[in-house]
Amino acid sequence: MPDTLFVLKIGGHVLAQADVLADVLDQFARREGPKILIHGGGKRASQIGKALGIPAQMHEGRRITDADTLEVVTMVYAGLYNKRLVAELQARSCNALGMSGADANSIRAHKRTGTTIDYGYVGDIDAVDAEGIDRLLVAGFTPVFCAITHDKHGQLLNTNADTIAATLAAAFAKKYSVHLQFCFERPGVLRDAERDDSLIPTITWDDYQAYRQQGIIHSGMLPKLDNAFAALRAGVKNVEVSSHEDIGSFAGTTLHL
Amino acid sequence: MPDTLFVLKIGGHVLAQADVLADVLDQFARREGPKILIHGGGKRASQIGKALGIPAQMHEGRRITDADTLEVVTMVYAGLYNKRLVAELQARSCNALGMSGADANSIRAHKRTGTTIDYGYVGDIDAVDAEGIDRLLVAGFTPVFCAITHDKHGQLLNTNADTIAATLAAAFAKKYSVHLQFCFERPGVLRDAERDDSLIPTITWDDYQAYRQQGIIHSGMLPKLDNAFAALRAGVKNVEVSSHEDIGSFAGTTLHL
Repeated sequence: MPDTLFVLKIGGHVLAQADVLADVLDQFARREGPKILIHGGGKRASQIGKALGIPAQMHEGRRITDADTLEVVTMVYAGLYNKRLVAELQARSCNALGMSGADANSIRAHKRTGTTIDYGYVGDIDAVDAEGIDRLLVAGFTPVFCAITHDKHGQLLNTNADTIAATLAAAFAKKYSVHLQFCFERPGVLRDAERDDSLIPTITWDDYQAYRQQGIIHSGMLPKLDNAFAALRAGVKNVEVSSHEDIGSFAGTTLHL
Repeated sequence: MPDTLFVLKIGGHVLAQADVLADVLDQFARREGPKILIHGGGKRASQIGKALGIPAQMHEGRRITDADTLEVVTMVYAGLYNKRLVAELQARSCNALGMSGADANSIRAHKRTGTTIDYGYVGDIDAVDAEGIDRLLVAGFTPVFCAITHDKHGQLLNTNADTIAATLAAAFAKKYSVHLQFCFERPGVLRDAERDDSLIPTITWDDYQAYRQQGIIHSGMLPKLDNAFAALRAGVKNVEVSSHEDIGSFAGTTLHL
């Protein structure tokens, strides 16, 4: 039986609350076996960008990344948050190693083209070097990925953290039994976004299509679930969407094909 | 005979000029064998800090690092510059892996105390995990270190890049024949700071004492040379201070005990 690899993605709301973040990192550090953390940081990037006179421009929940914005997200994701998370994990005796997709050429992407809107320096992933990352896992390191990739020609690219998490998880599905968890500020996928007690405990692909048509699942949850189902189709064993209270405990929404 | 390890430190002036930086990275990437790059970035940190309303406070050439300043240097050193350097090296087929001292717990430090002036979150180095870093070298990665360390209790610390370079070089002196080079904007150590043709090609420890007393070597060059001689005393084979035109060619100032 293959080893379990735990892949956890934490969102900007988790990062922004010190007590919630500490709780998540406690649980993540305690968990044994190979594991990878992926983080966003968009909320803070918007704040710091604004302070620098570079206001955030969004289109359908995705950041339009001009050259100045790329500098801001590189500073906030790869610098501020990535190193803070690494230091916090090291304090918990988890041998964290912070990375972007440029580091060790781990995630290669290309600048998004062919869309009606120009997203700027936004990268769509071409390849994950699972072998190279696995050498780090086997050597006992815990990679902590920020939402920055590169094109192998010297250009950094801003890449959605949910997509990075799902693509990393998928790339390891052949070697490991992968458990992918998206941790955010709600208990899971909700029937009624206003009510935390309206959790949907399991969603199949057919359910997902129905929920979409009925308008029960919409907006920001769609790309997250699209990523999640893509990971399942690629052979990821378990995919879960949950709050920070349930790291690895399957108490949120579990997805099935 | 032990393998040669090349340890190159590049300063803020090199980072700030695109053509100079490209030249240095070309030379560094071409060089075969295990190697480590260390970079500063203080000039840009001061600019970005100023834009954020956090002006640089310096004391004897060292940055006073309050909590806000630590965020700025972490963003600029570990984010902006570190990832840009890694992406540029990857474009040159050098398998770079960007790191702070928190990553892989590679450089542990403590907050400086006992000085008349409070430097804030400035770290003095306690330990380098040469074994851990060597696992990365042996696996074919080229570590790229920024000037950030940690205390292993969750606190990031701002640490002088020259000191990091010298301490890393010293930590590898047992296993490797280490060549340490400080690359900056001048041809080497000069007799007359105004004249690039006044290069001093070699300096022994006794020369250094004499030059200091005569006021020929002074101010910013002193901590750099103190670091350089400390590395030699720790068993580093060659130490050189030079411009970007002479990566590994000993055309600058070479130091001897």
